[in-house]
Amino acid sequence: MDPSHKPTYRPPRLFVEANLAAGLEIATDREQARYLLKVLRRQAGAPVLLFNGRDGEWLASVEPLGRADAKLVLKEQTRPQPLNDGPWLVFAVIKRGPMELLAEKATELGAAKLLPIKTSRSQSEKINEGRLYRIVHEAAEQSERLNAPEIATVQTLPELLANWPNDRLLIIGDESGTAPPMLSVLADNPGQPFAFMSGPEGGFAPGELDGLGDLPFVAKVGLGPRVLRAETAAIAGLTLGQAALGDFKASRG
Amino acid sequence: MDPSHKPTYRPPRLFVEANLAAGLEIATDREQARYLLKVLRRQAGAPVLLFNGRDGEWLASVEPLGRADAKLVLKEQTRPQPLNDGPWLVFAVIKRGPMELLAEKATELGAAKLLPIKTSRSQSEKINEGRLYRIVHEAAEQSERLNAPEIATVQTLPELLANWPNDRLLIIGDESGTAPPMLSVLADNPGQPFAFMSGPEGGFAPGELDGLGDLPFVAKVGLGPRVLRAETAAIAGLTLGQAALGDFKASRG
Repeated sequence: MDPSHKPTYRPPRLFVEANLAAGLEIATDREQARYLLKVLRRQAGAPVLLFNGRDGEWLASVEPLGRADAKLVLKEQTRPQPLNDGPWLVFAVIKRGPMELLAEKATELGAAKLLPIKTSRSQSEKINEGRLYRIVHEAAEQSERLNAPEIATVQTLPELLANWPNDRLLIIGDESGTAPPMLSVLADNPGQPFAFMSGPEGGFAPGELDGLGDLPFVAKVGLGPRVLRAETAAIAGLTLGQAALGDFKASRG
Repeated sequence: MDPSHKPTYRPPRLFVEANLAAGLEIATDREQARYLLKVLRRQAGAPVLLFNGRDGEWLASVEPLGRADAKLVLKEQTRPQPLNDGPWLVFAVIKRGPMELLAEKATELGAAKLLPIKTSRSQSEKINEGRLYRIVHEAAEQSERLNAPEIATVQTLPELLANWPNDRLLIIGDESGTAPPMLSVLADNPGQPFAFMSGPEGGFAPGELDGLGDLPFVAKVGLGPRVLRAETAAIAGLTLGQAALGDFKASRG
């Protein structure tokens, strides 16, 4: 909730857990109260937009309760709740900094689901789910989404593949240099639900992707002649997927 | 020069300032010696790849000089020097962290030139050129580039436009929601040299882009229905440009 990212001509947007409906009043937590009252210096009656991932976007007014607390009084729905039907991002667990960057950028790019996997080269098998939850919800606030990506529990690649929905294309960034460029592969699959999968730093181990090319829902693609870091490949893959198959074709409402 | 990004089956790659030719010997600086001898534990004769942005890529062998110093003995050229003919990235000066991320990712994505501009909403007009130089050269090492993007001095948008080469498309990420999707614009310009321009946090000020649409080399494009952070727009714009017009169509050598 960095104030420099909130242009003053737009009301601030906050994610809340509470239900949203006309006439309800929402208690702010300490961080939200500090942000509205101290950082943005909002006065009584100032507009704020709220979303909870279920009930759409609501206009509310800030009602300060003393110097460090506030409630939010709901006025009217400003946008209905959309389906969270964007792409999925499957990613090998990597170090904390790049993984948090990946989660933030995937949210901005419209990902509906983040699926961490452990691979033989993963530096860690652990993710801090609380931190990732906070990061994707802050990114949703910033990017004007009305939902945040769901974060799945860590699983292995075989576990992931065993439960894969057959109608969703699984696009794998392949650094071997033999895969066709991503856009040329996607051109054959307009409107297809998709996931992009990025590997660990240093790439998948030899053999780790063997056999995947035989799965009917898998497409291996190239992302140019350079070696991309894991999080860069994830961002580039989601971008190209959204541009070719997803909602980059839509304009802003 | 993070060791986790260097798979053990590839020789490490180092950027050096010195000339590269058969038989020459290169002195390492303290950081390079520490990296080769302490982090990677390379022994005498271990292979290393060197580039200087001028003479291509060279295979060299590590020759330790005591415990904390080493020289590099050049063997043979492994790749010729390519043209640095990739896209340009024009970007409003933003805060240090996101700007350094933008420089790193632009390097991975093949940018030939980084052109910082000051805008009415820029948080700062300063860039730390030394830090950016180091970041783009480390990113070149990681991504197996043989050059790094040139970093121009900060200028205003009118200054930039006054000297713009007419044969290079200037693609502007437009958050107004009225611009057509980037891929649909680029489809009309195959093979075109291009630059992508990203704005400050909060976007360009009202009026700041007025008149730009009349310039023959400018294309305003949309990047989907969400609000992207400045650095995310830059990464997405370079990715789509490289995929449609640039070297994402090439496979890895």
